[in-house]
Amino acid sequence: MKIVRFKYQDAFSYGTLESDLVTVYDGSPFPLQGVQSAVFQSTQQKIPLKDIKLLAPCQTSKVVCLGLNYRPHAAELNIKLPDLPLLFIKPSTSVIGPGDNIVLPPNPERIDYEGELGVVIGRAARNVAEADYDDYVLGYTCFNDVTDRVAQVRDGQWTRAKGYDTFAPTGPCISTGISPFNLKLETLVNGEVKQSGNTADLIFGIPRLVSFISGIMTLLPGDIIATGTPDGIGPLKAGDTVEIVIEGIGTLRNSVVAA
Amino acid sequence: MKIVRFKYQDAFSYGTLESDLVTVYDGSPFPLQGVQSAVFQSTQQKIPLKDIKLLAPCQTSKVVCLGLNYRPHAAELNIKLPDLPLLFIKPSTSVIGPGDNIVLPPNPERIDYEGELGVVIGRAARNVAEADYDDYVLGYTCFNDVTDRVAQVRDGQWTRAKGYDTFAPTGPCISTGISPFNLKLETLVNGEVKQSGNTADLIFGIPRLVSFISGIMTLLPGDIIATGTPDGIGPLKAGDTVEIVIEGIGTLRNSVVAA
Repeated sequence: MKIVRFKYQDAFSYGTLESDLVTVYDGSPFPLQGVQSAVFQSTQQKIPLKDIKLLAPCQTSKVVCLGLNYRPHAAELNIKLPDLPLLFIKPSTSVIGPGDNIVLPPNPERIDYEGELGVVIGRAARNVAEADYDDYVLGYTCFNDVTDRVAQVRDGQWTRAKGYDTFAPTGPCISTGISPFNLKLETLVNGEVKQSGNTADLIFGIPRLVSFISGIMTLLPGDIIATGTPDGIGPLKAGDTVEIVIEGIGTLRNSVVAA
Repeated sequence: MKIVRFKYQDAFSYGTLESDLVTVYDGSPFPLQGVQSAVFQSTQQKIPLKDIKLLAPCQTSKVVCLGLNYRPHAAELNIKLPDLPLLFIKPSTSVIGPGDNIVLPPNPERIDYEGELGVVIGRAARNVAEADYDDYVLGYTCFNDVTDRVAQVRDGQWTRAKGYDTFAPTGPCISTGISPFNLKLETLVNGEVKQSGNTADLIFGIPRLVSFISGIMTLLPGDIIATGTPDGIGPLKAGDTVEIVIEGIGTLRNSVVAA
């Protein structure tokens, strides 16, 4: 199932996507705080995809991101492999949806794309065992960990470099029922392939990440784990179109504009 | 005015605190998304402080924290003064209220207190000029930036070290109408003074912080800027009681317990 969130005639809804048709659902796939299960039921109403505005497919409280989680990317940056997952956080205010613009900061020096598989958390997760990871995952999405490379190096801490508004494009859907362990991932800029990786090359796999992170901080419904980027990172400039394409999920497409 | 949030007979409310009495208010001092002004009105009902459970005084989407923002603390750590504010984020899931327990991670090595002045954002702030900072600040609170010092050094990135559930004690109130520029701040462990600073020693002052951070990421109502800690950092162990005391605000008191 490909779950989408969208705006149609001033109303915000969840639904499912099949080819070019969206089926409208009542409720949400995410339980509200204190409620065990979510109401998420088809209304049977179908709307052409072209008539709706897709939004980021989840409302997230935080994006927990991984540094250096593909072996080829660590090699590209000449950084040794980490012993433990290296975490940083992108705030909810950085998340945008498919088709939304990535807005460059004033006087940008080098702003990079980083195509990533996003894990969308389905229910509150705390101290989850690796074997149980799938009970807490709703599905998977495409994620672009947009990064100010100069600020990242200058600050040491990555929060500013990664935390700008619009620096976390997410979507187009949450794909459920797929296996995340061997998915082809590509990043294209203006139609040209820049990154080509496979989730089989993750240093820390998804069961380990759900377990490790939930042992530190509670993951809430709608939170995203951004699992790290493969090699091939590179710059974006105003006017570019960047696409993250992941097998079994779809294409997340965003344009880049000046401040 | 000292604004508090509390639980009384299974209901959650905002109110104001005067000595040992809480006045119950309708609504919230924070505008809802898309609403310009908040409904926040006294009901005249007064309840003794001892009959309520104080909560963290705001519901925050993120805590934006400052590294190295007191000159004496930078000297203590033997780190050069930063050219720009150094940011990191504590997630909403780390926030606890007055009287709540700080829960140590399993096998803690060195977990430190860091007493800080917290700036509570009152309305959505984006690209705020320094001169306008006060239009976006509701008031000030006490904050404890609890830190796993060993993980901080090991990871390089500070997110794990600072992001554990319960590692962001906040409260007891939001003090409005005070000037934040010359406030005495003390941290006590088991009644003994461990940190004694003054906000006059901030490297980057509050107008600069509101402007700098809001130029990167939108600050939402209820978000906290934790302005950094003075010198005198040190360890906590299970059984300790830690207090952050700030002039014009009050005392934030939490106990430390094992996992």
